[in-house]
Amino acid sequence: MTDTNSTYVNLLPHNWKDVVSSWLNEDAPSFDYGGYVVGTTFETAKLYIKASGVVAGIPFFDQVFRLLGCKVEWLIMEGDKITLNTGEQKRCIAYVTGNTNSILLGERPALNMIARASGIATKSRHLLELKEKHNWHGIIAGTRKTTPGFRIVEKYAMLVGGVDTHRMDLSTMIMLKDNHIKAAGDIQKAVNKARSVGGFSLKIEVETSSYEEAKTAILAGADIIMLDNFTCDEIKVVSKKLKDDFKDKKFFLEGSGGLTEHNCVDYFCEGLDILSFGSLSQSVGHIDFSLKL
Amino acid sequence: MTDTNSTYVNLLPHNWKDVVSSWLNEDAPSFDYGGYVVGTTFETAKLYIKASGVVAGIPFFDQVFRLLGCKVEWLIMEGDKITLNTGEQKRCIAYVTGNTNSILLGERPALNMIARASGIATKSRHLLELKEKHNWHGIIAGTRKTTPGFRIVEKYAMLVGGVDTHRMDLSTMIMLKDNHIKAAGDIQKAVNKARSVGGFSLKIEVETSSYEEAKTAILAGADIIMLDNFTCDEIKVVSKKLKDDFKDKKFFLEGSGGLTEHNCVDYFCEGLDILSFGSLSQSVGHIDFSLKL
Amino acid sequence: MTDTNSTYVNLLPHNWKDVVSSWLNEDAPSFDYGGYVVGTTFETAKLYIKASGVVAGIPFFDQVFRLLGCKVEWLIMEGDKITLNTGEQKRCIAYVTGNTNSILLGERPALNMIARASGIATKSRHLLELKEKHNWHGIIAGTRKTTPGFRIVEKYAMLVGGVDTHRMDLSTMIMLKDNHIKAAGDIQKAVNKARSVGGFSLKIEVETSSYEEAKTAILAGADIIMLDNFTCDEIKVVSKKLKDDFKDKKFFLEGSGGLTEHNCVDYFCEGLDILSFGSLSQSVGHIDFSLKL
Amino acid sequence: MTDTNSTYVNLLPHNWKDVVSSWLNEDAPSFDYGGYVVGTTFETAKLYIKASGVVAGIPFFDQVFRLLGCKVEWLIMEGDKITLNTGEQKRCIAYVTGNTNSILLGERPALNMIARASGIATKSRHLLELKEKHNWHGIIAGTRKTTPGFRIVEKYAMLVGGVDTHRMDLSTMIMLKDNHIKAAGDIQKAVNKARSVGGFSLKIEVETSSYEEAKTAILAGADIIMLDNFTCDEIKVVSKKLKDDFKDKKFFLEGSGGLTEHNCVDYFCEGLDILSFGSLSQSVGHIDFSLKL
Amino acid sequence: MTDTNSTYVNLLPHNWKDVVSSWLNEDAPSFDYGGYVVGTTFETAKLYIKASGVVAGIPFFDQVFRLLGCKVEWLIMEGDKITLNTGEQKRCIAYVTGNTNSILLGERPALNMIARASGIATKSRHLLELKEKHNWHGIIAGTRKTTPGFRIVEKYAMLVGGVDTHRMDLSTMIMLKDNHIKAAGDIQKAVNKARSVGGFSLKIEVETSSYEEAKTAILAGADIIMLDNFTCDEIKVVSKKLKDDFKDKKFFLEGSGGLTEHNCVDYFCEGLDILSFGSLSQSVGHIDFSLKL
Amino acid sequence: MTDTNSTYVNLLPHNWKDVVSSWLNEDAPSFDYGGYVVGTTFETAKLYIKASGVVAGIPFFDQVFRLLGCKVEWLIMEGDKITLNTGEQKRCIAYVTGNTNSILLGERPALNMIARASGIATKSRHLLELKEKHNWHGIIAGTRKTTPGFRIVEKYAMLVGGVDTHRMDLSTMIMLKDNHIKAAGDIQKAVNKARSVGGFSLKIEVETSSYEEAKTAILAGADIIMLDNFTCDEIKVVSKKLKDDFKDKKFFLEGSGGLTEHNCVDYFCEGLDILSFGSLSQSVGHIDFSLKL
Repeated sequence: MTDTNSTYVNLLPHNWKDVVSSWLNEDAPSFDYGGYVVGTTFETAKLYIKASGVVAGIPFFDQVFRLLGCKVEWLIMEGDKITLNTGEQKRCIAYVTGNTNSILLGERPALNMIARASGIATKSRHLLELKEKHNWHGIIAGTRKTTPGFRIVEKYAMLVGGVDTHRMDLSTMIMLKDNHIKAAGDIQKAVNKARSVGGFSLKIEVETSSYEEAKTAILAGADIIMLDNFTCDEIKVVSKKLKDDFKDKKFFLEGSGGLTEHNCVDYFCEGLDILSFGSLSQSVGHIDFSLKL
Repeated sequence: MTDTNSTYVNLLPHNWKDVVSSWLNEDAPSFDYGGYVVGTTFETAKLYIKASGVVAGIPFFDQVFRLLGCKVEWLIMEGDKITLNTGEQKRCIAYVTGNTNSILLGERPALNMIARASGIATKSRHLLELKEKHNWHGIIAGTRKTTPGFRIVEKYAMLVGGVDTHRMDLSTMIMLKDNHIKAAGDIQKAVNKARSVGGFSLKIEVETSSYEEAKTAILAGADIIMLDNFTCDEIKVVSKKLKDDFKDKKFFLEGSGGLTEHNCVDYFCEGLDILSFGSLSQSVGHIDFSLKL
Repeated sequence: MTDTNSTYVNLLPHNWKDVVSSWLNEDAPSFDYGGYVVGTTFETAKLYIKASGVVAGIPFFDQVFRLLGCKVEWLIMEGDKITLNTGEQKRCIAYVTGNTNSILLGERPALNMIARASGIATKSRHLLELKEKHNWHGIIAGTRKTTPGFRIVEKYAMLVGGVDTHRMDLSTMIMLKDNHIKAAGDIQKAVNKARSVGGFSLKIEVETSSYEEAKTAILAGADIIMLDNFTCDEIKVVSKKLKDDFKDKKFFLEGSGGLTEHNCVDYFCEGLDILSFGSLSQSVGHIDFSLKL
Repeated sequence: MTDTNSTYVNLLPHNWKDVVSSWLNEDAPSFDYGGYVVGTTFETAKLYIKASGVVAGIPFFDQVFRLLGCKVEWLIMEGDKITLNTGEQKRCIAYVTGNTNSILLGERPALNMIARASGIATKSRHLLELKEKHNWHGIIAGTRKTTPGFRIVEKYAMLVGGVDTHRMDLSTMIMLKDNHIKAAGDIQKAVNKARSVGGFSLKIEVETSSYEEAKTAILAGADIIMLDNFTCDEIKVVSKKLKDDFKDKKFFLEGSGGLTEHNCVDYFCEGLDILSFGSLSQSVGHIDFSLKL
Repeated sequence: MTDTNSTYVNLLPHNWKDVVSSWLNEDAPSFDYGGYVVGTTFETAKLYIKASGVVAGIPFFDQVFRLLGCKVEWLIMEGDKITLNTGEQKRCIAYVTGNTNSILLGERPALNMIARASGIATKSRHLLELKEKHNWHGIIAGTRKTTPGFRIVEKYAMLVGGVDTHRMDLSTMIMLKDNHIKAAGDIQKAVNKARSVGGFSLKIEVETSSYEEAKTAILAGADIIMLDNFTCDEIKVVSKKLKDDFKDKKFFLEGSGGLTEHNCVDYFCEGLDILSFGSLSQSVGHIDFSLKL
Repeated sequence: MTDTNSTYVNLLPHNWKDVVSSWLNEDAPSFDYGGYVVGTTFETAKLYIKASGVVAGIPFFDQVFRLLGCKVEWLIMEGDKITLNTGEQKRCIAYVTGNTNSILLGERPALNMIARASGIATKSRHLLELKEKHNWHGIIAGTRKTTPGFRIVEKYAMLVGGVDTHRMDLSTMIMLKDNHIKAAGDIQKAVNKARSVGGFSLKIEVETSSYEEAKTAILAGADIIMLDNFTCDEIKVVSKKLKDDFKDKKFFLEGSGGLTEHNCVDYFCEGLDILSFGSLSQSVGHIDFSLKL
């Protein structure tokens, strides 16, 4: 089940704090005039969520304010799904305490982050619920289609939402797409070259567009086979056949290409192990938050 | 009119190239295994747009590939509105030439950037067209509700789309919101403190929620008065009255709060000079692109 | 009036601490041999001012020592004008407490900073006093003629001294000089291009060298008109005439070019709103300080 | 077989050039006095290898001098095993051409790097040859026991030498050691927690110290089982038994702990798939090089 | 004699280019609006010197424009002493060629740098000439009293002016001042501790305030003895006596404390080897330059 | 005598903490999966030394864990020589207390550092003991042959071991080698050029290969003369003769070239002041450590 307390923060590497610091620099490259106007009176601000959704981004929110000497006290837990009641316009979910100028300096970067992270977590949770409702056994996963420079937050939000991040970057799992295969000569050669440098510790995934290609990839020793841009009817047949024909091989089958919450149910089939969604990080709605003294 | 050639690139500061460089580091923190597989064969890849929209982000796209020793030749101009014909699934808009491993290393960061930048430019252009269609005299503007670390691209995309960026950050125009006014004591005091540090070179905007507050702000010498979260009926009346009552004063009136392409036409009124849209950078759809060898 | 307590520190952006840190790296790129010699005995050093002047730079001084684990206790306030008595060679104005090696590591960067910042504040205060003595209504301002990499300290010191910083950098107010106007074609075109990207939130200043140019700039909608390198006689006439001829327009007139404390009184005239001084940051004397255990 | 041309350079991520740049900063933090003495005469220097060994580090060597505007022409290929003849004290393997001051500025960092990289590649090649001589089917691998800040060179040198890098860092394969298992409760719980965040794209390795633990790890779904600090006799028996008992499971067995070129032959057994050597990056001899104008 | 061609550039370390780059970031943290107004027309600008003085800073000036894709052609050499004729207001000394927006982006940082560097070189040259005029055998030197973050330019300018930089930072020569000696116990102990870490490769200087202290320092093995804040009469006597009394020892005597071009002639005495001037980098006038398209 | 408590930490410059921070980034560029598995339970781990040797690197070890919020309590002192008893496999020398995930995140970088630093300190101590055993009066010194990016640790470890670091980098003592002399014309010219920029505060060393060259260097005013690659018989004769022939000159003689603990005793002669060993930082064995919860 989903881990709804904040332990995902333990995943964050040492340098994520530098990323957060850069957000503050972006928003105040020279003087912070507003900070001068409000001064350093010690205050408490309330963080409100203004739409229903899954909250994600608490460690990043905390870090923005920790850098500014403020403290955040939360009334909810990371990953909680907040459902506003009819007529309820907003709900207080945290208190931020510190100097007024510091609270206002952190306000916009923190809100911009949590609005997007929670939007992604909300969509992730929705797909997870769809999967559970249809009793599908497979894995819902994201992609690398994230906002440049902001991936750590977006991948983190997928985890909080309850889905698989898929590979983080080019340095983890090796994915061999049509371009790689074409350049290497054929699937077998591409897999061999990948293995010669990736070694035993990395998985190799091969993107395929037919049963034949998938078969070749399985025999070449790929760990995961992506069936790319198949129709839902094709993918059911092909994935079933691959699983039947290669029962003694250990491999995963991943479906991908244009998947959204509106069409994915048709892809929830027996032969597939994974469905990956670019729509988990592109064209995602945000969740609205505000911070008030 | 909109400037559709690429001269907005001249706006970019010296350090924007570091931002682009950081995107590449994010996507390949240690080895680039795929790059080893494909090698350095010299190739040309085609960039396809796969949905209708306004293209934005060419300088950033170019820079990703320049860092990798590749060249990009464009068939369109920055800001061009591409409309796919019925049944046309994609259209080639540029060629990327260089070593195969370099092309594939830049592919994902470049596509992620241009997909989001073009989504924002497309929405911006749509609002601009709405305004022109209704012959509204005012300015369509964005806000600071951008993705942390990615603001330079998003503000740039607004310009390419044809709208006003609004202030870039806390160090340019001074905005005094309810929190600032409360902390400073009253509107006059807040404006005075802001002026004492912002000096003659920066404008001051005051956020207000009533005719009375707006009047006070005008008399205090604010350059721009934001009428925040008024209904469209209220805002028409109040903005008209303020303009009538203070004909001898030079100030702008800005309407803000929950504006989208669906409701903004009702706010296109005589008294307002500016309408600002958080929805220009939040919950924005992306435009799909792909890069094929 | 001048704000003589330390609240200008609230203006400093998040990244100013990195600047201070770089000063320490500059002065000890590899081993700190002296630090080894003195060791970590806990000590208190006295900061002396050794010449009369206005003290500026307290937040930067504090930050140097905060980075090194030391504390500073001040006997004066930021912006205080210290006047040494006849025969008084130095006066203690602060105590620095911490490990001896840390105190000595911070000593030179801290003293170098405060010597220059106080020199600028002293000159600023002197110009402010001149203006007040002559009952001039206008604004004394600095320029961008600051030491590369050290601007934040120098602009800050101008504020502490009591004068206007003028624009911080190329990203705040837009200044159109002869070169810009020549390149854009004429004043009107230059202002239009500037407005198309600067939008409603930035002011535009135009540099002019005659009544005619100034008139054109006013009619083009410039917010500030610089009368550059006029003699004091010319500037009085021209500024008066511009104010008379364009009473219904809202604009500032700025005089600039070779102004110093020795010649500025002649420029204190009715028509001008601003006088800007490169001499506030170039050829400025320092105030001498020393730190003694 | 070993890839002896320079294509491993294609593995290097975008930011490796920053690492190389930092080496130059380390060796000349302020003035380069020697550079002033020699001036900018255009010269060619010869790179000599002064001991037999496998050369590794060419891309890093090239980059040091590329940063300084020099060019390097190689007479050998990356990964070549150079064997000096009896009485041959040194052999020229490359020419470095550029300004004298630039050549001398790059000399020491470049030599320090290639001496260590080639030492590691030489040891790696030796282990590879041992394995081939004994017809062992398994994989020789390194560990994370690398010099802090220099890992990219050392892992790269292992590849050039012909061995597996093992995982690059904590963000690629997940390794669960005694400490992890103890903290998580038991092996099954630790594997489950790892899988919940690592997802389908990362492998999981479990460190074990007995047949029973190894069995539990296999049943828990670990991809790789490390048999840690077994004697060579024990490891032969246990690995054989595990492979026999779990024929239907897909997993690798890795042996580790105190392995060197002197004792590893005894561990070349049928049941093991991988042997990992901390001694590939610790207590490694260097290969001596010199650069002469 | 003074080296008046540009070979001092060979002294600059690898990372000085990062310093120059940071100046550009400081002056355009977000958009460069003026750059958009002027566009990319290819132009040539003239650099004028507007006061007599020694020009210093050519490599830094070149680097500002190299970063921006412009070229600089010089009509003079680094270190040239330019003397404007009576009535000559300015003299063209270089051409800067490139895109108009790039020229204007580099203009202000480049001028700010060269104005200060040339001011320091001019003062340095003046002191050198004074020394030569009075046939003094000793060395004129600067101090570490430089602008934080800008030391490399200021020390470089001293060399161009023809004086000794004195130690660059705490990591080169070891200076033991009153505070160090007090903390270490006595002069001998301080010198011993310094030697134990500085080793044979660094010189040790001891600050003294009497003949007795100086004698102790000489006997303790110090390489340089600073006679701090002596009157010119005292220093003549003491330095002569020390040289006479310790003829068999090799040491330098340095005079320091409040030296300027107005009082230094009185300190030009036989016994002193070095006179160091804080006034070479504090309270230094600038040389005015301008850049015109 | 050797300073065996931890005061060498006082030598470390301000920016060494950034170096330590980069080690953590290297080992966890994206998510720390293991950290998630173990969570934040508060624990104490024991640091064991597993071989006899001199411990060095305590400040760096402490800093790794300080960055991660952990504390280290030491049972030994920096520089202590630990001798394991017969049969004693390991000895606990410190406790690390903090969150389990933090302890494990710091474990590998900290161990990698201390293993290498202690290896260098151990070899340094051994050479020091050899020298003392043979009552040699001279100095044992290292070289610049360190691991790129890791020099500060390695030079520090030499000091802890009890030997001289030799010059830190190109910016401290000036060393003129064959290449420099060839480029400058002759020894005298090279020394003069070096002095013209290094000034009075830096020492100059000249590398020579014969009595004649050494004599020329002494007469040219070099502070240190390196006798490079002499046999032990030659060096005894030449160094003695130089000392006899130039009794009135103050200079050091350094022997260098292929020195190790196995051959150096033969070089312990009267005329030499310094022997420098590349083998203090190349081909150095490590000391094994482990950290156990």
